[in-house]
Amino acid sequence: MSAVRVLPLGGLGEIGKNMTVVEEDGRIVVVDVGLRFPTPEMVGIDLVLPDFTYLRERASEIEAIVITHAHEDHIGALPWVLRELGGDLPPVYGGALTLAMARAKLDEHRLRDVELSELDSNETIELGPFSLELIHMTHSIPDSGAVALGTSLGTVLITGDYKFDQTPVDGSPADVSRLAELGRDGVLLLCGDSTNVDRPGFSPSESLVGPALREVFARCPGRIIVTSFASNIHRVQQVVDAAAALDRKVVLAGRSMRKNVGIGRSLGHIDVDDGQLVGLRELEDFPDERIVIISTGSQGEPLSALRRMAYRDHPQVELRDGDTVVFSATPIPGNERAVNETIDRLYHIGCEVITPRDAPVHASGHGYAEEVKLMLNLVKPRYVMPFHGDFKRLRLHAKLAEAVGVPPEDIFEGDNGLPLVITERGAGFGEREQAGMVFVDGVEIGDMADVALRDRRMLSADGIFIVVVTLAEQGGHSVTDPEVIFRGVPFRDEADELLGEIRLTVDETLARASAEDVREVEMLQQMLHEDLATLVYDRLRRRPMVLPVVVEV
Amino acid sequence: MSAVRVLPLGGLGEIGKNMTVVEEDGRIVVVDVGLRFPTPEMVGIDLVLPDFTYLRERASEIEAIVITHAHEDHIGALPWVLRELGGDLPPVYGGALTLAMARAKLDEHRLRDVELSELDSNETIELGPFSLELIHMTHSIPDSGAVALGTSLGTVLITGDYKFDQTPVDGSPADVSRLAELGRDGVLLLCGDSTNVDRPGFSPSESLVGPALREVFARCPGRIIVTSFASNIHRVQQVVDAAAALDRKVVLAGRSMRKNVGIGRSLGHIDVDDGQLVGLRELEDFPDERIVIISTGSQGEPLSALRRMAYRDHPQVELRDGDTVVFSATPIPGNERAVNETIDRLYHIGCEVITPRDAPVHASGHGYAEEVKLMLNLVKPRYVMPFHGDFKRLRLHAKLAEAVGVPPEDIFEGDNGLPLVITERGAGFGEREQAGMVFVDGVEIGDMADVALRDRRMLSADGIFIVVVTLAEQGGHSVTDPEVIFRGVPFRDEADELLGEIRLTVDETLARASAEDVREVEMLQQMLHEDLATLVYDRLRRRPMVLPVVVEV
Repeated sequence: MSAVRVLPLGGLGEIGKNMTVVEEDGRIVVVDVGLRFPTPEMVGIDLVLPDFTYLRERASEIEAIVITHAHEDHIGALPWVLRELGGDLPPVYGGALTLAMARAKLDEHRLRDVELSELDSNETIELGPFSLELIHMTHSIPDSGAVALGTSLGTVLITGDYKFDQTPVDGSPADVSRLAELGRDGVLLLCGDSTNVDRPGFSPSESLVGPALREVFARCPGRIIVTSFASNIHRVQQVVDAAAALDRKVVLAGRSMRKNVGIGRSLGHIDVDDGQLVGLRELEDFPDERIVIISTGSQGEPLSALRRMAYRDHPQVELRDGDTVVFSATPIPGNERAVNETIDRLYHIGCEVITPRDAPVHASGHGYAEEVKLMLNLVKPRYVMPFHGDFKRLRLHAKLAEAVGVPPEDIFEGDNGLPLVITERGAGFGEREQAGMVFVDGVEIGDMADVALRDRRMLSADGIFIVVVTLAEQGGHSVTDPEVIFRGVPFRDEADELLGEIRLTVDETLARASAEDVREVEMLQQMLHEDLATLVYDRLRRRPMVLPVVVEV
Repeated sequence: MSAVRVLPLGGLGEIGKNMTVVEEDGRIVVVDVGLRFPTPEMVGIDLVLPDFTYLRERASEIEAIVITHAHEDHIGALPWVLRELGGDLPPVYGGALTLAMARAKLDEHRLRDVELSELDSNETIELGPFSLELIHMTHSIPDSGAVALGTSLGTVLITGDYKFDQTPVDGSPADVSRLAELGRDGVLLLCGDSTNVDRPGFSPSESLVGPALREVFARCPGRIIVTSFASNIHRVQQVVDAAAALDRKVVLAGRSMRKNVGIGRSLGHIDVDDGQLVGLRELEDFPDERIVIISTGSQGEPLSALRRMAYRDHPQVELRDGDTVVFSATPIPGNERAVNETIDRLYHIGCEVITPRDAPVHASGHGYAEEVKLMLNLVKPRYVMPFHGDFKRLRLHAKLAEAVGVPPEDIFEGDNGLPLVITERGAGFGEREQAGMVFVDGVEIGDMADVALRDRRMLSADGIFIVVVTLAEQGGHSVTDPEVIFRGVPFRDEADELLGEIRLTVDETLARASAEDVREVEMLQQMLHEDLATLVYDRLRRRPMVLPVVVEV
């Protein structure tokens, strides 16, 4: 009996690192390979990837990797996954912009042998037991598509991120006809975006943002700085158009802004005259009221152009009274504080700040509740498994599915690592597979949770005490006074006293060890650790990492 | 010529740690001594206090400390400030509940010799050159008062936190008549709360929350868990009343909830029958639909009762499908992520969750824009200095003052440490005084920013490498192989190779030192540090703290 397995490895019970494995007949198609950004508790971690052990063990079974669109939470882990798979790498499918951004990423990682295959929407290809089609959708980046995977039991439809924008900036709305067609022919399973299920109604169209920007710009007396996601190509276009309408030049600030505008122009997504673009260095050649700066940093990212401007640390742009900063974006959950800090620095400098709370200068790229229902009604799936959301949103999505008439027993609130197994007889969760987080830390990749990360947490909470004890190899007595070094441990008044006590404790411990005939260095270190940690806690009421080092000479 | 100085030491350009010094004729009254909670970057820090060096140097000039109300951001630093002032401690004035909570805090710090003087609203006392009066205000804790300090130039009015609740739960609205009277007699300076200046209109009354809670409760099939600030005594009363109306027993969860309800009952602010209260251990003796649990943890605090329940770590309360958790509070800026994480764990367990987005189960304790204007119109101040807010809110507050007719040159957007100096001739900022943050770290207090905190940040970002080199005192050559210890540094594949290179580098550095006749241990350590740090960065592309320890034997 044929069985189709859909195994989410990321994106459920969380926002970010979307990744799904679809299997039939021992063959695999991977949909999206995203990442997420670390929380502040993950000290020193740069990126978080899905745990893809499951794929590594089945590298030879992978027919293809398909990317719905080029946002980091859908494409960001691609270089790492490909690097770790080894052997013959599977081809990567996606839209033109998606692949252009993938190519840029892979180049940075010197992965040049990967086959990137552009797939036009409504073109269908065969991949082993599957057929694959990308259905054109609207989202906050061009070339976004829903993935329709044909299986022997029907179509598995993974929507990726989408909204039903009836008036998108490029004039090309989501292909509702094709979705309806698939629905008519029978969709086996719908895995839909849950990001905005908690918002009632329909999301506003992206094309409403342009006039709002123009209206705001018209009121600004001096320079205008607009910050947005660099990948939101249509937003950048609308800023450029609003600037042109008011006879302002455009300056691009931030590496990824310049890179993405370059890619967008080369693919025909952005239309801007060379004459309207001005370099950062020429900024002061123009009067304030003739300038719009488009900048990265809408999320308060530490090294972004806007953040540096706000902290008076940008080499070319010195903000001042009279400047207006427009946030054409909302904070991603978790970034609120960084964004608010940036805004407050801007107020402190004397800038005006306009956010989506003040004027409709942003539109979300994710459909609201009515759009999620529309998707369900168009596609008429046999089974539903909500995707892309924390547990709250998965629950709310399930309720919407019930509301449009999907029987509760056909709705599956899943979890990363929990495969949905579908046969002709029905559907249900299978046995849990390995899933979770993998950390990227500089150039390293690995499961840091157990060792280095725990150590760092301890180091960052209370600091470290190092006590170096030098022993004569014969006799086991201390040759010199122990060296005591500490870092990140605040104590001043007690310092001298405590150092004396530490020396005393070392002597006592060594004497006890000698009496008990303990000679092994490891054993000695353990005894020293116990006695010193007790002493330090007793005196400082804190628990720095205590590290006794025994050197035999 | 007499001069009045108003020096904010906290609460401007930030949310939290409110503290103000008012001076005339070399005498001082301190209004509020608050704290704030650390941001995640302040690794290992427990609390943040205002830098009160200015006060320490003038301890003998302090006539009194006045507390507007018993929230942590107004009273939390009291034990530390009193401990550090030393000598004859100034008396502390406040309302009855404020002092009861102050007493509990001081007892914990074994500060028993402090004179706590209850000041009824509208009672006026003399303090050196000042007169002092507390004017009854409404806020999310009882016994809140605005501080009116009479000076030779007129009244300085510091509002504390307030809203104009026309129907407060205890039937006692803010004393607008007295505010109007002060306005008629001439207020010199108004220092007003800016927390909600960005919200248009009037804040909803606290007494609207009770009916909303009752409506929500009536729909709940099983147990109800309500979380709110423990100090919001009137909220607790309304939860108790709603529970009683639906014949549900009340259980208190969380230490501060039990403590504050105890204090509230003893002062007559909370009215609850003994028969309605049930202990945590008796919880399972009652059917689910007969129980309301009032819990701490509305801010997602790590060790709070609700957080422990959400993470299935509470000794008495095991949440389950059918339970409803009501958040009768909104997240303080910065706590959004912790609150959202808690909510998502609750959904994962299967609980229903109701937040102020779903039903009006919360009312802010801070007045909105129209209330701020009402205050300005009642008090008719000569000068205005907005208080309690980040720079954005101070700016918006200044705009509101302009809107009601205060001349722009009489409005002062201040900063911590910047004194406003007022004489008969006018007002203006004086020279900056020391102000900033002081960290509390376990039992220690101090300016950790420079040393331990920086070290911890470094340790937490990249870990630590310790290289112990043992030298013969004569000759300067290495006696044994260097010991290499690392913590928080993830490297596996390169480990052996790198350890070999480290040893080699140590030998080379020692040889170079010997050739250059370097013998001083400190100098040697510096050379080793440079060479090893370069090597480690070269190999790992990260910068752990590198700590060479030279032991001479």
